[in-house]
Amino acid sequence: MTSIPGPYLLFLGDAPDRLIAKTACGILQWRPELCLGQFRLSGDAVDIGLPDMTPAEARAAGAGSIVIGIAPLGGGLQPEWIAPLLAALEAGLDIASGLHARLRDHPALAPAAAAAGQSLHDVRRGEGPFPVASGRKRTGKRLLTVGTDCAIGKKYTALAIHRALRERGIDATFRATGQTGILIAGGGIAIDSTISDFAAGAAETLSPDNGPDHWDVIEGQGSLFHPGYAAVSLALLHGSQPDAIMVCHDPARTHIDGYPDYPLPSLQRCIEDNVRAAQLTNPSARVVGISLDTSRMSQTERHETIARVAAETGLPVIDPIATGAGAIVDALTGSGA
Amino acid sequence: MTSIPGPYLLFLGDAPDRLIAKTACGILQWRPELCLGQFRLSGDAVDIGLPDMTPAEARAAGAGSIVIGIAPLGGGLQPEWIAPLLAALEAGLDIASGLHARLRDHPALAPAAAAAGQSLHDVRRGEGPFPVASGRKRTGKRLLTVGTDCAIGKKYTALAIHRALRERGIDATFRATGQTGILIAGGGIAIDSTISDFAAGAAETLSPDNGPDHWDVIEGQGSLFHPGYAAVSLALLHGSQPDAIMVCHDPARTHIDGYPDYPLPSLQRCIEDNVRAAQLTNPSARVVGISLDTSRMSQTERHETIARVAAETGLPVIDPIATGAGAIVDALTGSGA
Repeated sequence: MTSIPGPYLLFLGDAPDRLIAKTACGILQWRPELCLGQFRLSGDAVDIGLPDMTPAEARAAGAGSIVIGIAPLGGGLQPEWIAPLLAALEAGLDIASGLHARLRDHPALAPAAAAAGQSLHDVRRGEGPFPVASGRKRTGKRLLTVGTDCAIGKKYTALAIHRALRERGIDATFRATGQTGILIAGGGIAIDSTISDFAAGAAETLSPDNGPDHWDVIEGQGSLFHPGYAAVSLALLHGSQPDAIMVCHDPARTHIDGYPDYPLPSLQRCIEDNVRAAQLTNPSARVVGISLDTSRMSQTERHETIARVAAETGLPVIDPIATGAGAIVDALTGSGA
Repeated sequence: MTSIPGPYLLFLGDAPDRLIAKTACGILQWRPELCLGQFRLSGDAVDIGLPDMTPAEARAAGAGSIVIGIAPLGGGLQPEWIAPLLAALEAGLDIASGLHARLRDHPALAPAAAAAGQSLHDVRRGEGPFPVASGRKRTGKRLLTVGTDCAIGKKYTALAIHRALRERGIDATFRATGQTGILIAGGGIAIDSTISDFAAGAAETLSPDNGPDHWDVIEGQGSLFHPGYAAVSLALLHGSQPDAIMVCHDPARTHIDGYPDYPLPSLQRCIEDNVRAAQLTNPSARVVGISLDTSRMSQTERHETIARVAAETGLPVIDPIATGAGAIVDALTGSGA
């Protein structure tokens, strides 16, 4: 399992705007206490509001890693980043990256990291080896976010529920399964990069035995209704053994993103199939709520949509950005309406 | 996709019996035309009925590969095999192996193969890279074997149906997804060794577009009801887009092998869940028959069991060893009762 030493120096390169720097913005949004400073290659680069620091200054202030917080088109390491990243290694920082191009495949970075005794964390790569899933029921409680499609709010919903649990004083851990989530959490497993035979076992490894009242809030991946990624979703569902499932959905989406011949499933079908599959490894698995993306709706339309979906499903419905996740914490703790 | 040059010289080492030589026996049973000779390290080794040949003799007779046909305890390459395998490379043969220990990781075999210009085929290893599944419907017809558990006759059933189709003059290809199947077919993809994100795409690659009356008969893996391997089964189900599904079952088995807390699903549940999942990528997917392992039953008990399961499911029921697969070919071609 990946584990990235914190706190972070966020590398912004010469990113012109927050969209290119969305990884850094995501880490800062969800883990401000982990973000010591920002490292920009020019004064023209976007300022996300952290103190500017060099790698040496960040190391002196206690930083453990420099994290590549930008996602340039193509996902590659830019040539002008190499000298500053080498300086970070020499200053005593690890480097973490969610880019497609691997740090450890770079001809200069890999030997420099070895010489400096620092680690390169390619969080898009599946670590391992993992065991075949045992199917053994683990202690503690687990919530998993699933969806009617990919890129439909599963990470955001999990992070929002995790934060809401912590704000109520409930012991909870966010468990990351994708590259941005892993950088936010400082660790996790890129479940889609694991070997198929061991994917459910990797999911078991990610959320080990825990205290009886502790919640693992697990970031979902893919969708059972995605023709390419459903197996990733199933491995995560079986290995996570969730007690509670959150279904994420975008009411405006008509088909699986990038697959025009694959209509989006109904919420009812998505609930049924996820529960049916989840009950193999946890017979008491149930859906506890729906998370909608209502960002393109008017306030009136949002209220109507949330009320309609709540009536249709009989479940609490949130938009984690617009309404927060309090209603789900109520449902989990039995303290709500 | 793995492709192993034939015909084969089957390497038997000093295997004392057919059980240790079961890989060789399986290849000989299903592909006798592919088996040129056997290569034994001593006269005490098991004789599976092929002409004894040295690698040089086999090469002179047209052999393309030497295939390790034995599975010693532990799955390793035995030290006494290395000199004869080096001789095979020098004679101009590729080496193919389904052992856990990889040929290409052996310090003597890898450089010798490179020097001789021969290939080492580790069929237990997933090749790649494969694309993310497109979900595009392909031409031709496909049958996939699935099961209520692992090791329940999926490979044998697929091979028997493939043979029965060919005997009726129907154009058909056996598509292998596991190591023994790949050695029998001379090619295939070890689906359980692929990266999760690309497992369904690998299954699509395995059975490409084909003639409208051509059948791909695809070897299933795992089970949707296996807590460790269900995701492998789902990737194969989605990527194969089967028109026809055969459900393999052992009436004597009470729980998932090695998982005493996981009861075997009912045949009805297994049928329902496989069809439900398969219809995502092929809305006309249906179960066409049941394949039972009745090897431990008396003749009377076998007849009663087959009749009972046929009545319960309304489907043709075979035991591919005891009854052959003709009833399934009847069902596929509409020529049966």
